[in-house]
Amino acid sequence: MARLGGMYGPDATFLGVPRADLAEPGSWAGTDVLIIGAPFDGGTSHRPGARFGPQAIRFTDYLPHDGSRPHLALGVDPLAELRVADAGDVEMYSGDTERSLRALEEAVLSASEGGALPVILGGDHTVTFPDATGVARHVGWGRVSLIHFDAHADTGDSQFGSLYGHGTPMRRLIESGAVDGRNFVQVGLRGYWPPVDVFEWMQEHGLRYHFMTEIEERGADAVIDDAIAEALDGPDAIYLSVDIDVVDPGLAPGTGTPEPGGMLTRELLRAIRRIVGAVELAGMDIVEVSPPYDHAETTSMIANRAALEAISALAAKREAGATIRWEPRA
Amino acid sequence: MARLGGMYGPDATFLGVPRADLAEPGSWAGTDVLIIGAPFDGGTSHRPGARFGPQAIRFTDYLPHDGSRPHLALGVDPLAELRVADAGDVEMYSGDTERSLRALEEAVLSASEGGALPVILGGDHTVTFPDATGVARHVGWGRVSLIHFDAHADTGDSQFGSLYGHGTPMRRLIESGAVDGRNFVQVGLRGYWPPVDVFEWMQEHGLRYHFMTEIEERGADAVIDDAIAEALDGPDAIYLSVDIDVVDPGLAPGTGTPEPGGMLTRELLRAIRRIVGAVELAGMDIVEVSPPYDHAETTSMIANRAALEAISALAAKREAGATIRWEPRA
Amino acid sequence: MARLGGMYGPDATFLGVPRADLAEPGSWAGTDVLIIGAPFDGGTSHRPGARFGPQAIRFTDYLPHDGSRPHLALGVDPLAELRVADAGDVEMYSGDTERSLRALEEAVLSASEGGALPVILGGDHTVTFPDATGVARHVGWGRVSLIHFDAHADTGDSQFGSLYGHGTPMRRLIESGAVDGRNFVQVGLRGYWPPVDVFEWMQEHGLRYHFMTEIEERGADAVIDDAIAEALDGPDAIYLSVDIDVVDPGLAPGTGTPEPGGMLTRELLRAIRRIVGAVELAGMDIVEVSPPYDHAETTSMIANRAALEAISALAAKREAGATIRWEPRA
Amino acid sequence: MARLGGMYGPDATFLGVPRADLAEPGSWAGTDVLIIGAPFDGGTSHRPGARFGPQAIRFTDYLPHDGSRPHLALGVDPLAELRVADAGDVEMYSGDTERSLRALEEAVLSASEGGALPVILGGDHTVTFPDATGVARHVGWGRVSLIHFDAHADTGDSQFGSLYGHGTPMRRLIESGAVDGRNFVQVGLRGYWPPVDVFEWMQEHGLRYHFMTEIEERGADAVIDDAIAEALDGPDAIYLSVDIDVVDPGLAPGTGTPEPGGMLTRELLRAIRRIVGAVELAGMDIVEVSPPYDHAETTSMIANRAALEAISALAAKREAGATIRWEPRA
Amino acid sequence: MARLGGMYGPDATFLGVPRADLAEPGSWAGTDVLIIGAPFDGGTSHRPGARFGPQAIRFTDYLPHDGSRPHLALGVDPLAELRVADAGDVEMYSGDTERSLRALEEAVLSASEGGALPVILGGDHTVTFPDATGVARHVGWGRVSLIHFDAHADTGDSQFGSLYGHGTPMRRLIESGAVDGRNFVQVGLRGYWPPVDVFEWMQEHGLRYHFMTEIEERGADAVIDDAIAEALDGPDAIYLSVDIDVVDPGLAPGTGTPEPGGMLTRELLRAIRRIVGAVELAGMDIVEVSPPYDHAETTSMIANRAALEAISALAAKREAGATIRWEPRA
Amino acid sequence: MARLGGMYGPDATFLGVPRADLAEPGSWAGTDVLIIGAPFDGGTSHRPGARFGPQAIRFTDYLPHDGSRPHLALGVDPLAELRVADAGDVEMYSGDTERSLRALEEAVLSASEGGALPVILGGDHTVTFPDATGVARHVGWGRVSLIHFDAHADTGDSQFGSLYGHGTPMRRLIESGAVDGRNFVQVGLRGYWPPVDVFEWMQEHGLRYHFMTEIEERGADAVIDDAIAEALDGPDAIYLSVDIDVVDPGLAPGTGTPEPGGMLTRELLRAIRRIVGAVELAGMDIVEVSPPYDHAETTSMIANRAALEAISALAAKREAGATIRWEPRA
Repeated sequence: MARLGGMYGPDATFLGVPRADLAEPGSWAGTDVLIIGAPFDGGTSHRPGARFGPQAIRFTDYLPHDGSRPHLALGVDPLAELRVADAGDVEMYSGDTERSLRALEEAVLSASEGGALPVILGGDHTVTFPDATGVARHVGWGRVSLIHFDAHADTGDSQFGSLYGHGTPMRRLIESGAVDGRNFVQVGLRGYWPPVDVFEWMQEHGLRYHFMTEIEERGADAVIDDAIAEALDGPDAIYLSVDIDVVDPGLAPGTGTPEPGGMLTRELLRAIRRIVGAVELAGMDIVEVSPPYDHAETTSMIANRAALEAISALAAKREAGATIRWEPRA
Repeated sequence: MARLGGMYGPDATFLGVPRADLAEPGSWAGTDVLIIGAPFDGGTSHRPGARFGPQAIRFTDYLPHDGSRPHLALGVDPLAELRVADAGDVEMYSGDTERSLRALEEAVLSASEGGALPVILGGDHTVTFPDATGVARHVGWGRVSLIHFDAHADTGDSQFGSLYGHGTPMRRLIESGAVDGRNFVQVGLRGYWPPVDVFEWMQEHGLRYHFMTEIEERGADAVIDDAIAEALDGPDAIYLSVDIDVVDPGLAPGTGTPEPGGMLTRELLRAIRRIVGAVELAGMDIVEVSPPYDHAETTSMIANRAALEAISALAAKREAGATIRWEPRA
Repeated sequence: MARLGGMYGPDATFLGVPRADLAEPGSWAGTDVLIIGAPFDGGTSHRPGARFGPQAIRFTDYLPHDGSRPHLALGVDPLAELRVADAGDVEMYSGDTERSLRALEEAVLSASEGGALPVILGGDHTVTFPDATGVARHVGWGRVSLIHFDAHADTGDSQFGSLYGHGTPMRRLIESGAVDGRNFVQVGLRGYWPPVDVFEWMQEHGLRYHFMTEIEERGADAVIDDAIAEALDGPDAIYLSVDIDVVDPGLAPGTGTPEPGGMLTRELLRAIRRIVGAVELAGMDIVEVSPPYDHAETTSMIANRAALEAISALAAKREAGATIRWEPRA
Repeated sequence: MARLGGMYGPDATFLGVPRADLAEPGSWAGTDVLIIGAPFDGGTSHRPGARFGPQAIRFTDYLPHDGSRPHLALGVDPLAELRVADAGDVEMYSGDTERSLRALEEAVLSASEGGALPVILGGDHTVTFPDATGVARHVGWGRVSLIHFDAHADTGDSQFGSLYGHGTPMRRLIESGAVDGRNFVQVGLRGYWPPVDVFEWMQEHGLRYHFMTEIEERGADAVIDDAIAEALDGPDAIYLSVDIDVVDPGLAPGTGTPEPGGMLTRELLRAIRRIVGAVELAGMDIVEVSPPYDHAETTSMIANRAALEAISALAAKREAGATIRWEPRA
Repeated sequence: MARLGGMYGPDATFLGVPRADLAEPGSWAGTDVLIIGAPFDGGTSHRPGARFGPQAIRFTDYLPHDGSRPHLALGVDPLAELRVADAGDVEMYSGDTERSLRALEEAVLSASEGGALPVILGGDHTVTFPDATGVARHVGWGRVSLIHFDAHADTGDSQFGSLYGHGTPMRRLIESGAVDGRNFVQVGLRGYWPPVDVFEWMQEHGLRYHFMTEIEERGADAVIDDAIAEALDGPDAIYLSVDIDVVDPGLAPGTGTPEPGGMLTRELLRAIRRIVGAVELAGMDIVEVSPPYDHAETTSMIANRAALEAISALAAKREAGATIRWEPRA
Repeated sequence: MARLGGMYGPDATFLGVPRADLAEPGSWAGTDVLIIGAPFDGGTSHRPGARFGPQAIRFTDYLPHDGSRPHLALGVDPLAELRVADAGDVEMYSGDTERSLRALEEAVLSASEGGALPVILGGDHTVTFPDATGVARHVGWGRVSLIHFDAHADTGDSQFGSLYGHGTPMRRLIESGAVDGRNFVQVGLRGYWPPVDVFEWMQEHGLRYHFMTEIEERGADAVIDDAIAEALDGPDAIYLSVDIDVVDPGLAPGTGTPEPGGMLTRELLRAIRRIVGAVELAGMDIVEVSPPYDHAETTSMIANRAALEAISALAAKREAGATIRWEPRA
């Protein structure tokens, strides 16, 4: 497999970081973080468009695409201090789900085995099944916790008669054993999904979840404290999956299944910062950005910043003894 | 009057609930909640488009239009546990206000007399005059309180020389005696309306109001506590009128007279949930959704969810002894 | 298979015509024209969204959805004079192409066998493979000509490694023998597709094609005269496939693969009118309308009018001895 | 009646021409052309928004708002060579049609009686009833021809039970006798309106009409030649009514009832130029521009240019012996 | 210099206040607040369009443009109680930065010297350099504090090789001495700018800054308390510069360099109200509104309300002994 | 000068052609066509945004960015048969016009001197001054004809007091002598610019021009025949400047100064094909594409196709004896 570049447009990397070719490990030896595009929306149950997510998340940003991003509050430049490279898109034909998912799983596994943290830019949420599977194959089957920001639990049994879709990845992961049910921590759930039988299945399998109603009452910080503790209850490697629809659709309209009443963007960025600072991150995806429904790239920018926030927190964490600048001043 | 269906488009019901024909009471006997479309924007003082509100509120939603909506946090399925039907639109020609308002008032009265809770999908705010009048004719003249979420008080004396318009319904209701001034509780007021003489009239008539500045300082929960207490100070049946512009226009751009600085969507949904849980609801409208100014249906979705939240809370309330699941976990 | 209604939204029919359930032939016995929704975009090579095409084509229109549409220039009311019904959508999961295409083929075959002319609302152009196959199974294998309006020949060998996609349906039809290569008449081709090997394949298989450059030089009327003659050269039943991207993307932006320099809308409507008036129509599809990229429903309206124009011309043709009113007045 | 200025926004004039106050005739004595805004959309049967038409038509344009517009092809500056003033908007509350129409009729009559050519910026097409009535009261009852560019005949009997609306003005004018049926010349009709009984009424009353099908076959120039001859068949003063939906909605999306397959913008501008050059113009309106459905102001600009083209042709006509520069060069 | 009016459109004033001509001081003698348009975007490093900011901020608003705006919560009508006039736009050609900035500086100085508070409507942030310079020339070089709401510090050394741009105005002000580094108080900073060397320069020059992370942790009220105290630490006249991108881009998309995770609109309006109530305001600008990227004018409305909130707070402050109505009710 | 890549976004080339670095001639030795981005909009008199034109023109297109584009009607693959490379953007700060224009002129000269045909992607029309100057410095001062598609003559004397802007480049070229007045051939002029004195200046300097009115009457083919003959009247090298606003703004809304009534896209593409086939092309630019005002990339696609059409015609011309396939079939 030679580097595809952009499946749906020009070949340019996330904010200008160097190119990598997964098929040529030498091209990215020593890389800390590997960006992988998953331009797939064949699993979306409603508005498609997430196939253009990787391109949009990579290309948006008003700053020069120069491979440098000094994080003001954390005092680190994640693209300079870590070795971040971009493997381009995996070819994922939205009309052929199973073949596409296999290709992505292999790509993620390659990254993990090569020692890089995979950061996958979706794509609809179907991709978390191969993403987390690929990570678990490297880290250890059932040895990863999954912190999952989303309006929806994505634990459906099937979707339009198919096992694969953006409403089912979490069930597939639990069924395969890649992730144990108890090691799921979901944050931001709300609205009118899933149906009762699915919710009961979740309870039987011990998933932990935090509704938006809980955030309304306790505040996001308290809920994130709990989520971190739950994720660390057993495994110590964490896979972080951020469905952009956890953010309120008034702020993030460019998504497929918008559910009103979500988190603020700043609550999400802060949560990512805190989680990555507290746990051992083994992989991450940012999914469900649908550019055709976006306006002025506001949703793409949130996803771009979510990726950067995670990488920045990673850099800050590695920088031993550094002053954490974002604490309020005395 | 035979069922009109959709005045401005196809005839399909709110999320797939059964059809009702107001002219044939047998078609909806035993119905708990009756959806009524009020596709009128002849009373808007600025951006029109609310005539397409009923269609948009009914049709939006990424979930199947199957007449089922299990509320995740409340643990009820309002469309399954209550008998909800949709009477379609009332014919309301925006260029002929008085005839349109009479037709709506009769429709709402029919619903109330038939034992169903009318949930009216506007339309501009002019429609609250016939809506609340129809309810008061059934419940008792002056025996209903009105909790009113809005950026604007809508208590003007006249509008472009006319008594009827979206800036005057509350004055008309008080003048007719359908609702007593003291029984008005307004939440979310802000901006630069009304003029001083109108505000003085409001004070003379004893209206209660909660500015956004109060929510900024005390928080929405405390203000809603007060609003509920005030609404229950006398009458025990409540009419709830939700002008979508109470939500910040950054989150709900699809409206006619957007005033920056409003409530968060999640604050509104929570307030509706708490109010319906605490009072006896006699009717409800959701108004001022203007699809031409919306983006990616985000505003329509808030209105759709506002209706569902109220019906869900109603279902939860009726379910005796049920655990209220949305409380934070111990 | 019970009637699905709308796969992605409310269940309402094309402009208010009666419902039909393909699984219950009695529900549409005697129907002349059967509308079938094909909400599939898993085969699109670029911008998705055509899954919402059926809904948009059915619901758009500023006139009442009353099952009546008197065609001004032709002097017929196609929805009143013909028996037109709407079978709703076929369930087509975009992530599972082969299963979806099989379901559509069976639906089209059912319509044809039931004596109704199938008019399929796409969906991306992948659907023409099952559409025309279903028709050919009824009319006769290799006994149908296909007049194909499109910017692209859609004769690719494969797409992202898959045999099925919106770039390959015409090849699949020729390979299976459902339609003979010589019986293909393509109108409106332009731009930078296909590659040379595919074009040579087309020439080897005897396809006829009319580039936009030919329309520029000879005018649309002369080209359509030729296209009709070529289509009638052998078979006498015609399948008409209208890819909305044959229209200039300035006029029809809501599509997946827009190629500048196309036909005017009025040229397309006139061509459809003339073709249907001149040949025996055995089926029709209108594809590649992608609502997320549309503006103010202009593209959906063209597709809606293309369907109506064909049905109107059919009605006018059946009305023996009628004055053809659209000729210029003496 | 003091000058209202802009009913829905700032008070600024058409491209910077001087202000006039209809109530103070001295403020516009000697004016050749008087712009009048008719911000009314209470009569639209579908998409509202035309209330913002006057503002959009006045304000759009990338050139300085300096009251000068040298027409390149005609070699005249209509705003400099004629005395053009802007009376601002008439207050027209869309929810109170009859009062609004009376106010507009008086405004138009005032302009005509004051010796100025009224150019009314709509507003929906309802306004042509008072517009042409006002002109006929001055020029002579039944002594005016009406050339009417439109996709629709607008000769309905009633609309949603009301006599007044954008589908009925031409019937009202004929019924009142203000304009004789034979003196109506309609250009651009197409689509699926009116129903048969209305079309028969048109034929009984002798209206002349030119379908788009005729323009397709004979070309716009030949049709306009006929339209001019028909309009001059009897009366010699002409009222010109331009419904922007005569232009193809792909080019002019910002309108209420878009019907695909219309004229090109350049065909409309050329037709206006030729008509005004050939007849005695007694009044003009440009209607049905709905800014909420426009994109990048393209529709508003067509309307702005339609007004300017008419005024320019008027100026060119008055300039005796001038070389008509827009003929092709030898 | 005669009054230009609107550089890019019609000449109409902020919400209908009287016109002023800077070149004719008699036209605005006794004015308290002078609105000045700065239609310049030649300094923007990414999305242009702020040249249309002044027009959009002036013209938006659903209320009549009648020069009256009674502030509901403060109980004052700022446009009635203060003398507010609008000087129109300064001619600022975006392709010729230095000439443009000089012209603006002179305009601001004229306003200040004439005794009016200048409220400048940008324009990109480049304009704060001439704005604050003009104010400092009147108030006293180095005698003004600058409270600066922004996602970005705008303290760059140069931009694309030029000293002038929207990333450098604060550096230029400090270098010239117009404002002392210690007298800068920045609120809302976040994201990935500036680079380290610029941040070190800021620290060397003693700027005070409050990151969004601080607002997340301490709340906006506490941070604004500190900002006011810091601004008053030395100078007692304050220049307030509001970059609209301090608001979260989900709420305010119409801007050039959107950085996710910002303030809520209501937090900004409240902060302006509190600051103006607490300090002596010497000038104000509202910048970086880019209408081409806005939706439904939501961003322009925030800017309009930010200006009104400041003027309202000014009026409330001058009204001695008035009850401050916006405090929560007892 | 090292290769800048994309001034405002990622560094990717026109449809995937190889990169070139103007400062390293070896990187593009033997190149036939060199793409140069001119991301400048400091000279636009109205809507900015053309700075994003180069990126949009390069990146749009639904086909793979693989450096291959087989032209269907011409039977050539311009990117395969010619050596086409992309030099990236020239750094052009829109706020510093003169420096920016100098840099562009040097880049164009370098390309010409290196033996490559420069194809410049604007940017606003200001850039034609340095573009054509650079070409003339190589080909011969006054030895180049300029065929200029545009709604506007762009021959103004100055703009907002500056010599440089998108309304003046043609005057600057004539004044400098780079292009002789008689060697200007303008096609598509219309509307209300220039003022009389500028038009007289044009006539004095012998410019040839073809109004849209001429195209309306004679057809585009006849006008282009004349334009070619006029361009070849003297010089035999031609510079082709395509302002996208020559196309009707209904089809090409994404531009700064839209003038209704323009050419059809297919007329423009055909004209480019015919001109390049008939003359010796020395350089070309495509300007005034403003992505913020575009919809669904339709305008960018026209510009992309205009560039490809020219390069394709060039390839077809070089292919001696080739059958010109786009002629109508016998």
